[in-house]
Amino acid sequence: MQIARVCGTVVSTQKLEKMRGLKLLVLQLVDAEGELLPDYEVAADLVGAGVGEWVLFSRGSAARVEPGRELSPIDALTVGIIDTVSLENRQVYNKKDRY
Amino acid sequence: MQIARVCGTVVSTQKLEKMRGLKLLVLQLVDAEGELLPDYEVAADLVGAGVGEWVLFSRGSAARVEPGRELSPIDALTVGIIDTVSLENRQVYNKKDRY
Amino acid sequence: MQIARVCGTVVSTQKLEKMRGLKLLVLQLVDAEGELLPDYEVAADLVGAGVGEWVLFSRGSAARVEPGRELSPIDALTVGIIDTVSLENRQVYNKKDRY
Amino acid sequence: MQIARVCGTVVSTQKLEKMRGLKLLVLQLVDAEGELLPDYEVAADLVGAGVGEWVLFSRGSAARVEPGRELSPIDALTVGIIDTVSLENRQVYNKKDRY
Amino acid sequence: MQIARVCGTVVSTQKLEKMRGLKLLVLQLVDAEGELLPDYEVAADLVGAGVGEWVLFSRGSAARVEPGRELSPIDALTVGIIDTVSLENRQVYNKKDRY
Repeated sequence: MQIARVCGTVVSTQKLEKMRGLKLLVLQLVDAEGELLPDYEVAADLVGAGVGEWVLFSRGSAARVEPGRELSPIDALTVGIIDTVSLENRQVYNKKDRY
Repeated sequence: MQIARVCGTVVSTQKLEKMRGLKLLVLQLVDAEGELLPDYEVAADLVGAGVGEWVLFSRGSAARVEPGRELSPIDALTVGIIDTVSLENRQVYNKKDRY
Repeated sequence: MQIARVCGTVVSTQKLEKMRGLKLLVLQLVDAEGELLPDYEVAADLVGAGVGEWVLFSRGSAARVEPGRELSPIDALTVGIIDTVSLENRQVYNKKDRY
Repeated sequence: MQIARVCGTVVSTQKLEKMRGLKLLVLQLVDAEGELLPDYEVAADLVGAGVGEWVLFSRGSAARVEPGRELSPIDALTVGIIDTVSLENRQVYNKKDRY
Repeated sequence: MQIARVCGTVVSTQKLEKMRGLKLLVLQLVDAEGELLPDYEVAADLVGAGVGEWVLFSRGSAARVEPGRELSPIDALTVGIIDTVSLENRQVYNKKDRY
């Protein structure tokens, strides 16, 4: 999985049927030290993440194992909103410090 | 998923049987700020996207979950034509402004 | 999918059983403007492509959906020989011009 | 698979149901000569690896073949704690030397 | 698939059950001209390749289609030991010249 910061949203009305009802978030990848990377991904969101929050997301067929989503043509999905990231037992990110 | 701009088409007559009937679009990837990237992908298209439009596309096995396409040997598929892309609550792309 | 130019072949006799009978082509990737890229892939070939031809190829599990190939341990497959590539309604490649 | 060094952990409480009970490790990739790379991955851990240990990890659907984990939306999993890495019959890493 | 040179081995005793009995090779990728690349992969080996040999390997779910390996959490597998690589009808590698 990768760590990313939610930085926006995508809206599409002319789309495949099985894309309906899915919120689409623009995620900017974050490296292990917490620095923003110049890479982004658009992921479907089922955990209710908002702009500014750090999330963990999965790519590939992992995005379609949620019950009811097996036929959604998605290849990226947020799997959790991050509370803390610790490196060498030092906290580099804590959600509470940001909100 | 990734955001891309439709920039062309590929035509192939000598191809695998299950590729028949699929429109093949050349997509140029776009970064989160809306800048064109030097990366492209060829994707099958089932949403009727045209040259110049921004689309959202999926890669990998997500390209084959549409009913009837399970045996198409494709690894990229457009899943929606993009209306808007917003970053930090600021719109960076709106289809209406382009057409 | 990606566009590539067939540039060679690989021969292997000591191989997994389900690799038998598969022609293995060395493909050099081509960017959207038709420039050769420093990236290559070895793909199984079922469309009869020859050295010098441009092909469209798929990666991942898409390489194993052809009937009879489900158990071949391959992750790349040519899916069509390219006739034309057009960008912004301008033809950048036409097979007839090359042969 | 890739070789990596465990360098941290991620904690997420607001997450998809099937992510529950999974320890999430931050892994920093290591090249064949044993040098740390600027690339990281977050992987679920079922082998009990700790910070500082070298692990082997798999990506993609391989992360979900463990019995009971088929529906976990994960795309990276530690598959073993590394004892030794040998290159050209020369040992470049031995767990015993590090602990 | 990719071409690589076998350059080492990984040993892991504390590992997932379905990893048992698998030889793990360190592979250094080779480009189409036969130059070693700074990229490596750890692959399970079922063709009996040794250090110094060139192999063809597959990534992703292709690594698990061999009968009996469906539940091995691996994402890379050697599928053949390479005899020759030819580019533009010129041989760039021949196993016999190396041994």
